[in-house]
Amino acid sequence: MADGYLSFTNTPWGHWLARTLGLPQPLPLQRYRPGQAGNLLNPVVLAAGPQGRLSGELQRIFAATDTVAAVPARIDAPSTVKVRGLVFDASGLADVPQLDELYRFFHANVRRLSAHGRVLVLGTPPEHCTDLAHAVAQRALEGFVRSLGKELRRAITVQLLYVQPGAETEMDSSVRFFLSRRSAYVCGQVVRIAEPVDFPGDILWDKPLTGRRALVTGACRGIGLAIAQVLAGEGAQVVCLDIPAVEAELQLVAASLGGTALALDITAPEAAERLLAFAGEQGTFDIVVHNAGITQDKTLAKMTEAAWRKVMAVNLEAPLRLSTALLEGQGINPGGRIIGVSSIAGIAGNLGQSNYATSKAGVIGLVQGLAPLAARRQVTINGVAPGFIETQMTAKIPLLLREAGRRMNSLAQGGQPEDVAQAIAWLAHPASGGINGQVVRVCGQSLMGA
Amino acid sequence: MADGYLSFTNTPWGHWLARTLGLPQPLPLQRYRPGQAGNLLNPVVLAAGPQGRLSGELQRIFAATDTVAAVPARIDAPSTVKVRGLVFDASGLADVPQLDELYRFFHANVRRLSAHGRVLVLGTPPEHCTDLAHAVAQRALEGFVRSLGKELRRAITVQLLYVQPGAETEMDSSVRFFLSRRSAYVCGQVVRIAEPVDFPGDILWDKPLTGRRALVTGACRGIGLAIAQVLAGEGAQVVCLDIPAVEAELQLVAASLGGTALALDITAPEAAERLLAFAGEQGTFDIVVHNAGITQDKTLAKMTEAAWRKVMAVNLEAPLRLSTALLEGQGINPGGRIIGVSSIAGIAGNLGQSNYATSKAGVIGLVQGLAPLAARRQVTINGVAPGFIETQMTAKIPLLLREAGRRMNSLAQGGQPEDVAQAIAWLAHPASGGINGQVVRVCGQSLMGA
Repeated sequence: MADGYLSFTNTPWGHWLARTLGLPQPLPLQRYRPGQAGNLLNPVVLAAGPQGRLSGELQRIFAATDTVAAVPARIDAPSTVKVRGLVFDASGLADVPQLDELYRFFHANVRRLSAHGRVLVLGTPPEHCTDLAHAVAQRALEGFVRSLGKELRRAITVQLLYVQPGAETEMDSSVRFFLSRRSAYVCGQVVRIAEPVDFPGDILWDKPLTGRRALVTGACRGIGLAIAQVLAGEGAQVVCLDIPAVEAELQLVAASLGGTALALDITAPEAAERLLAFAGEQGTFDIVVHNAGITQDKTLAKMTEAAWRKVMAVNLEAPLRLSTALLEGQGINPGGRIIGVSSIAGIAGNLGQSNYATSKAGVIGLVQGLAPLAARRQVTINGVAPGFIETQMTAKIPLLLREAGRRMNSLAQGGQPEDVAQAIAWLAHPASGGINGQVVRVCGQSLMGA
Repeated sequence: MADGYLSFTNTPWGHWLARTLGLPQPLPLQRYRPGQAGNLLNPVVLAAGPQGRLSGELQRIFAATDTVAAVPARIDAPSTVKVRGLVFDASGLADVPQLDELYRFFHANVRRLSAHGRVLVLGTPPEHCTDLAHAVAQRALEGFVRSLGKELRRAITVQLLYVQPGAETEMDSSVRFFLSRRSAYVCGQVVRIAEPVDFPGDILWDKPLTGRRALVTGACRGIGLAIAQVLAGEGAQVVCLDIPAVEAELQLVAASLGGTALALDITAPEAAERLLAFAGEQGTFDIVVHNAGITQDKTLAKMTEAAWRKVMAVNLEAPLRLSTALLEGQGINPGGRIIGVSSIAGIAGNLGQSNYATSKAGVIGLVQGLAPLAARRQVTINGVAPGFIETQMTAKIPLLLREAGRRMNSLAQGGQPEDVAQAIAWLAHPASGGINGQVVRVCGQSLMGA
């Protein structure tokens, strides 16, 4: 959908006007395009605080991706050479005074970042620190990363990756995601890397989903369509599921992706059974994306019971039932990935969306509750929580509210459906087995939260 | 500090103008005043979903506080009688369809709430549900409560209390806090009640802190002064700590509260030793409130190392060192309470506050990391995270930013220092031993979060 303000402020006259009036000056994001140069951000500066345990593995990843990683002789060595990424291994920062190293590196280097650059701070999960001072210093990183995300602007994003001791080799897919154009609309996020639930063997980094069967619900349009497209682009065989009413459209979508259409009402009592039968006939799944979702907004006093129930049935009950049925009925393979779609509304609540927010908070409960059970079958389940994404749904929001929703994030713009899809492709990656039970926001670091 | 807009919109002409222009219409909050009628909200409606396990204990609390609790014959029985509280025991809601009960009760009753009313939803912590569908339904409550908090307005607040099975008798202090005027500026919060770390014996509900010795750092002014005053009002003997430079002022404050002054630079190398010596001479502590905090705002590229270090030393390193010294040196008694002061900036990050936000995120790390260790000594540690509180600090914020900060929450106004103090008094309560390792926001449900 069109963001007129974004276009306008990137004309010379619009830029001047926005700057003069102190208005937001969003840059058009540089998104991933297959085969295009610059998809991986290069060069970067790599530095580590004392006792960092991640530099070796980071160097290996940079070497494998032809990323030039300059390692400064001194952490705060001054330089004016522009770079596209700053990577700091903070995993060993063992107490509060050692956080000075974090300050020193970023104070000296932050001006070197080009527009559209990336910052990645890596730490040790506080809950895995045996020493209190270490845990406190590591937990403090969250405040740093989120502040930096809010102050750098110019389409720069900042994330924190907590890597569990012993899981150093599992951060590959996440480092590549966060240091690439794929994560253009993800900012201020905290992700934990643990021991993987599966051992995928060799990974085709070029088309990592080759040979994988993916199910995407609500695949006919909007975010679901983008998910199906991106997964197919990464090599997956996509089963596009949507309601029978749009079957003709669905057939076209599936055909365009070399995939299969499955017209099914996921809220029907026999939906799980039919899906399992389909998997039995056509092939079981490696990736399941619960994207189908609806809204029926009203304040609670005016909301009908039908509106409550419908939203709960589609957004929450169906993902819960289908996930457990697929796991129990072996409709999803070992090494499988389940991805739920939550929402900022599920995290922060939203006026007039008590049904929607309840269902989307429930999706977080599903992700967190099912993760240990899924892991026993070598399957991960994670969630994405989109913020303001430009779709037909958000195009219907009244202008002023829409403008507020678009600008109230660190990138001062709405995201595109493909931004959500790219985050899902990262979670669905065969190398992402160390990520389980987590919800990642795709919101440009929206102000809104809990 | 004065909120001119709040006063203006509560004149007839200001009210008309705000309504006509669709501007926020905050109501002046009704705060707790000792001895005043109406401090506890009464009457309330009490309802429970299937298999709720908390109604008996809630009835007992209502009886003990002379609260009239109407129990409707049917959960969705229509009534137009106004009430000041709605309490719903959702602890037994075992799956997504049972969430309909939640909808039915609030749909039927939400209009009955007077201005300044309270909503309290009680649940079972999802991580303590053995059944996945139960965990999902319980986790979904968060989205409901946060949405309701954003839609009810008229100074109504909404909270969610997760009560661990077996800890039903431990929710007394929290139910009283949330159904009273003491929690006027707390909204949209989720609190967990677990088995208590101590067994306090008989509780004086009237002056619950009688006989308790409390240490408050930064007690000379602002939020620290309010904390000292509220704790003293609840019966505590307060040791008012502040920097030597303000010792004369500190003596006056301490004298006015019948307490003791302790002039001490908490960042000095010998601070912990001196504090332990003081406790050895004058008496060990039951309550320790780490309130002292400073800001030195600058974007990271412009921030000096001194500004980074100073903020980290006062806001984080001192609470960490003093807490561990007091616990290890037996300067805090069994049944003790440590309370850290974090900030919304520590949760969400803030532009130009990378030092402050890092330190305040670290306070959350301290609360979470120290909680299990403290519990072994029958001590709890919790945190409060103030949002926009009207102080000399916020009075210096430029007008437009200040106005935005004030209005961007469900109550459309800033809080007062006493609001933070009341939350701290609740966490310091002898009956709050079931709350440990948690951070509660005092922010009127600020939009901002992570």
